[in-house]
Amino acid sequence: MRQVAAIMAGGRGERFWPLSRQSCPKQFLPLISEKTMLQETVGRLAPLLGPEDIYVVTGAQYAARVAEQLPDLPRENIILEPEGRDTAPCIALTAAYLAHRYPGEDAVLAVLPADHLITKPDLFRQILAGAFALAAAEPVLVTIGMSPSRPETGYGYIKCGEKVPWSGRHFVYRVQRFTEKPDRAAAEAFLKEGGYLWNSGMFVWRLSTLREAFQRHLPEVAAALPTLTAACGGPAEALAATFHSLPRISIDYGVMEKADNVYVIPGDFGWDDVGTWSALARLLTADADENVTIVNAPAAHGAAAVQEPILLGSKRCVVSGNGRLVAALGVEDLIIVDTDDALLICRRGQEQNLKSVLEQLRRDHRTAYL
Amino acid sequence: MRQVAAIMAGGRGERFWPLSRQSCPKQFLPLISEKTMLQETVGRLAPLLGPEDIYVVTGAQYAARVAEQLPDLPRENIILEPEGRDTAPCIALTAAYLAHRYPGEDAVLAVLPADHLITKPDLFRQILAGAFALAAAEPVLVTIGMSPSRPETGYGYIKCGEKVPWSGRHFVYRVQRFTEKPDRAAAEAFLKEGGYLWNSGMFVWRLSTLREAFQRHLPEVAAALPTLTAACGGPAEALAATFHSLPRISIDYGVMEKADNVYVIPGDFGWDDVGTWSALARLLTADADENVTIVNAPAAHGAAAVQEPILLGSKRCVVSGNGRLVAALGVEDLIIVDTDDALLICRRGQEQNLKSVLEQLRRDHRTAYL
Repeated sequence: MRQVAAIMAGGRGERFWPLSRQSCPKQFLPLISEKTMLQETVGRLAPLLGPEDIYVVTGAQYAARVAEQLPDLPRENIILEPEGRDTAPCIALTAAYLAHRYPGEDAVLAVLPADHLITKPDLFRQILAGAFALAAAEPVLVTIGMSPSRPETGYGYIKCGEKVPWSGRHFVYRVQRFTEKPDRAAAEAFLKEGGYLWNSGMFVWRLSTLREAFQRHLPEVAAALPTLTAACGGPAEALAATFHSLPRISIDYGVMEKADNVYVIPGDFGWDDVGTWSALARLLTADADENVTIVNAPAAHGAAAVQEPILLGSKRCVVSGNGRLVAALGVEDLIIVDTDDALLICRRGQEQNLKSVLEQLRRDHRTAYL
Repeated sequence: MRQVAAIMAGGRGERFWPLSRQSCPKQFLPLISEKTMLQETVGRLAPLLGPEDIYVVTGAQYAARVAEQLPDLPRENIILEPEGRDTAPCIALTAAYLAHRYPGEDAVLAVLPADHLITKPDLFRQILAGAFALAAAEPVLVTIGMSPSRPETGYGYIKCGEKVPWSGRHFVYRVQRFTEKPDRAAAEAFLKEGGYLWNSGMFVWRLSTLREAFQRHLPEVAAALPTLTAACGGPAEALAATFHSLPRISIDYGVMEKADNVYVIPGDFGWDDVGTWSALARLLTADADENVTIVNAPAAHGAAAVQEPILLGSKRCVVSGNGRLVAALGVEDLIIVDTDDALLICRRGQEQNLKSVLEQLRRDHRTAYL
């Protein structure tokens, strides 16, 4: 059975503002390596999948950027969402696109985020291969879970139920319960109790199993699938109209939390969702004062030398510069993000309020900064 | 007797880095009004003194800038220090220049800093006129002192002695003692004890009285005065050589603290030396969260609109921008100075360590940022 991966690359990356912008969100930035997050995500699928079986789902405004960053990806493998409507419609569109392209064929589909870190790609590919095999063999929704290493409140948690007999080399559990981002006490209780995994947002299922899940838990999505499939070959307006009729809901909330045929494979391949500046800082090498420096390519500065920051009496700061000189004197626990046209100074732990900055920019119609 | 003022405009303004640079230090910046500090200083002398009696003492590298900022000042009234050697040599050079220009004439000379704030210029002129009259009438070194309003540790203090009989409309006291920047406890004790004034760094004396003071307290300076006077009409090299032979010492330490003929006139004309970013912030209007915003002309941004900062959950911050967008989220007591090529984030109260940043830049040979 055909195995394909769809990389969801339509996110706005607002938690990495002002480096991440609507015009170039997080997944298109080289946050951790010299490659962009999207390039890393696609690159680590080889040799498990060839370029013809990798799809990137994104907004029309990013089509050129995806093509530029992924020159080996066939152009017809870029699936354009008419608008951002959360993950359930996005996955339905992917399923429709595959049904349009391979009429009457079933396939195993892996849905993968575009902007996560995986430090052990070999192990990742082994787990993903196991998930493909499991989803091909059983009519189940397979997720990949990570052993929690800290009481993180920014992730969803999966409570493992009974172990599933499975001939593959990986453990498989029936999912007992999903819990969205818990509070600190609940997260600590989960770690103490054991048997919980972080929800990585990676899912593997057959198209037929996915359609059945939509039928049961999101019947309006299931009902729209034939129209959506037909529209994939037609004018953009028809596709947009059908897509717009889909409920704005996440696959977790709309399907996964309700379904009783969800399996999870633990896969500790050095995963991190790199969800915030502090999360990014945790992944990079710090100096003796626990400061982390990220120097992004100083595009606007041409040949000017990148200026090392001067951090005197400053501790636990994250400095993301664009090459300009940054001096921090006697400050602690700050996120300092310098870009060509905007500067952020944020107390660590206050990053969830970044959305308030973006809201104010929207209210002010300062759209160039979004 | 001729009355002249010499404005000392050779300072490096390092405490206002990175806005203030070697190429354009504090006195040449419009920190408080639309005029530069130097323009304000010269402007408030009218109508007490005409342009022909105002001198600006500065480094050769600032000659063009002074001429540009003060188009009405005669070019020959710009006195160029061959190098920065503290205030005693600077004042000796001024005296020599005046002796060269007006041979055999005595004059009353006011020495004034170029970069201080005075909010009551009428009162300032009244006091200065009184100081001119006092210095013309008596062979004394006249200083102008300010009533301290807080136990400031950044200023020098003057302990007033006996009241001097004087027919003018101002009080005059004999100076009992100068105390350089005291510690907090000493400053509080001064305020509690009373009879102390802040040393404004403004001095008025006859040239003849000054020469006598040099003779008594800095005889090597007095001995160099004739050579220095002769060199004022000659090649720059001769002047530089003589100037270089003078001791690197301040007029306070070299003369004022030792002399027994020092008088002080209290002059509460809304003075502030605007010595630090925090001092500047104290002088400007704050928002409800005690944040102060200073937007400097965005020269490098051309016609781009100046972006109002977004300060969310941030308190007691000073934001000096160049027009770029600055967002501060959940931070307190920070000085944020954004310039075209350098950015400073400094905890308030740590400004005295700015010199360490400059030292590191010198060590690194990053001279463009000094």
